[in-house]
Order: sequence, then C-alpha cells, then structure tokens
Amino acid sequence: MTRTVKPSRKPERLRDDRCALDALLDEIWVGYVGLSLAEGPLVLPVSFARDGDRVLLHGSTGSHRMRALADGAEICFTVAVADALKVGRSAFGTGMRYRSAVIFGQCQQLTGDDLSAGLLSYLDRYLPGRSGEVRPMTDKERSATMLLALPINNWTMKVADGFPVDDSEDRESQSWAGIVPLIQAVGVPVPNPDLGESISLPSSVRNLIGR
Amino acid sequence: MTRTVKPSRKPERLRDDRCALDALLDEIWVGYVGLSLAEGPLVLPVSFARDGDRVLLHGSTGSHRMRALADGAEICFTVAVADALKVGRSAFGTGMRYRSAVIFGQCQQLTGDDLSAGLLSYLDRYLPGRSGEVRPMTDKERSATMLLALPINNWTMKVADGFPVDDSEDRESQSWAGIVPLIQAVGVPVPNPDLGESISLPSSVRNLIGR
Repeated sequence: MTRTVKPSRKPERLRDDRCALDALLDEIWVGYVGLSLAEGPLVLPVSFARDGDRVLLHGSTGSHRMRALADGAEICFTVAVADALKVGRSAFGTGMRYRSAVIFGQCQQLTGDDLSAGLLSYLDRYLPGRSGEVRPMTDKERSATMLLALPINNWTMKVADGFPVDDSEDRESQSWAGIVPLIQAVGVPVPNPDLGESISLPSSVRNLIGR
Repeated sequence: MTRTVKPSRKPERLRDDRCALDALLDEIWVGYVGLSLAEGPLVLPVSFARDGDRVLLHGSTGSHRMRALADGAEICFTVAVADALKVGRSAFGTGMRYRSAVIFGQCQQLTGDDLSAGLLSYLDRYLPGRSGEVRPMTDKERSATMLLALPINNWTMKVADGFPVDDSEDRESQSWAGIVPLIQAVGVPVPNPDLGESISLPSSVRNLIGR
C-alpha cells in the first residue's frame, strides 16, 4: 500500500525534489519514528544516516522497540528543521521558515557486510572521516548494534520559505517585519577527563568544528 | 489509562525532574505529534509553547489533522535535542548527549479568553515581548487559529550526558575522545523586502539576537 499525505492546507508548500529531501536528511541530527502500538501511538527520537535511497536507523539489539521495527512494523519517519522565525507585523502574520518530510514504510535489518558498511556510513555521517581513525569494530560490538534500513520510496516534503506576508493595513504600520535565521552550530570540543595530555584533536573533529 | 514508557535499556537515563522537562520544552522550537490513524502511524512536526502544566499545540482550524486532535485522539508528543556528539576512541563508543521526553494524552481545544491568552503566550515563547509590540488579534484571525492544550501529566524523560566511556584497551590507545557541543544559535535578522527604511528592529528581536 502506498500511503500519501494530502496536506489539507497550503499545497504550494509541497516539494517533490529528491535533492531537497536528501539535503534535509543529511543535515538533521535527530529523526522521529512513529509507531502505532496496541496501547496507542509512540514517537521515538533516533539517530540516523541517509545511505543512498534508504535511511539507516540506529539502535541496540537489546531494545524491544528496535526489534518491533525489525519485525516489519509500519512506521512514519519524520524529520523537520526550523530555519528561521518569520516575524510579521501582526501576531497572526508571524510564523516559521521550515523544512519537513515524512517517509512511510517498513524497515529491514542489516546483516553481514551490509551491516559493516552501514555502520561506517552511520559513523561518518555524524563525524565525516572518523571511520578511518578508529580501530575496526569487533564481532561482539557488531552483534550488539542494530541498523534498520527504511527505503526512501514513499515520502512527502513541505517547505515554508519566503518572508512574512502582512495585509495592506499592517504594511502601512510602523511595525518591523522580517526573518530571524535559526542556526545549528558546533561548539568548542571538550576532551575526555581520562584523555592523555599529548593526544591532539583528530582531523575528523577539526574538520567538523571548522565547518 | 495511564501509559508508561518502560525503557528496555539504560534505565539510569530516566529523569523524573519536572524542572528538567520544562527547560527542555521551553528551549526546543519544534515538537512531534504522533497519531495512530487507520492507514498507519503519522508523526507531524508542530510549533508549540509550554503554558504552565500544559503544552499548547498550534495550528489552523482549516487543518483536518488539528481537528482530529481536537476531537480527542490519543497522541504521543515527543521532543528531543542532541546536545553534543560523544566521540569515543572506537566507533562503538561513539554516541550523543541528548535530552528527550514523551508526553501521552489527549488534547482539548482552547476557546474564549483562554484562547486569547494562549495565543499571546505562544507568540512570546518564540519572541519574548512581541505580544506587547503588535496590534491585538482580530476576531477573524482568532477564529482561524487553533490552539490545543495537552496536559503535562503522563510523561517520561531521558537524558544521556557525561563523556564517552571506552574500555580499558581503547583508553590506552593514542586515540582522541571527548565531546563536541551542538548549539542552536540565532543569526542576523533580515528585514522584509517591503519594509520601510526608517523602521528599526523592535526590542523583542534585539533581545532574541542578543541572547
């Protein structure tokens, strides 16, 4: 079954540009997995990585919810970012620039070489180049880690951009209107308390904070 | 029915500190509402404001999903923030500092004076003081806006903090470990293209960017 999300409002905000979806998925640090459980809906925040035409969701094999996902539960995976506050001249004209997307589907658990490669993609998505700086994962570590792949087939994206649009009476007022950008930034790294003094920042972290 | 979320892993990350929950809700710009629909789960990003012991969810009366919420659908409201990347000496030891919370319940639609006051709280939550700078909302604007109140009764919060914990063999390696903070920042305001030249930034925006 192909589910669709028909927005009841502002259809002009819909986007069918896969590149815009990929950019959003690659930029956002936390996604939200929705499940319909017997006791009601549940939304879980997850770390994830886009790997081509699929989203890899990360968790522990010890998590009963990850196992429910691995068993093929229907999910809704949602990501969103508030890009700016749109400050209108009136309360009603105030809103947000945002990008959001939902992906519907079922997950499949990664195994073998696919799991090994997926784990490196997942690590490098948060800290590009880090996979080349650390020792290989052990079999024990790999077997404790679950990666689930959600295909990027059935998705909908919405984008609100532009500036606040006030009505003509408000535009003639002396009230300010504009946008205030919201930015995700990276701070100054803090070394582990147990780190040896002679150990300097690796390239991966230097590149991340230099961005 | 009081739903509980029993985490299958890391119960030490649970928090029952209502102040910590409030701080998280007051800091985060986007929340996620999960619904169980006949066709499957749905997770929608929403803007919101905490108003004492309830969360106010904002939407349009023209949205059929907001109306489903107003009709008393069971929801899961989830918020999360990634506070830092925890960079371990190994891939397996790498993770995140995060705070997340879920609130279960049903919403009630605000009306009358409660709606009027709620709309001001909602505006000031994103831009403190703005409600004193704009004209009052008209009846027409008020009737087009929906605010739904979700009581903060039935909630669970998880916090992952601290530093990466590597095993002793990894600690002896020359690999770096530490945290890289992730920060939400506010950028330089951009005036509306249709703004008169003599109109300067209001205090609310100046205070927001000064934070």
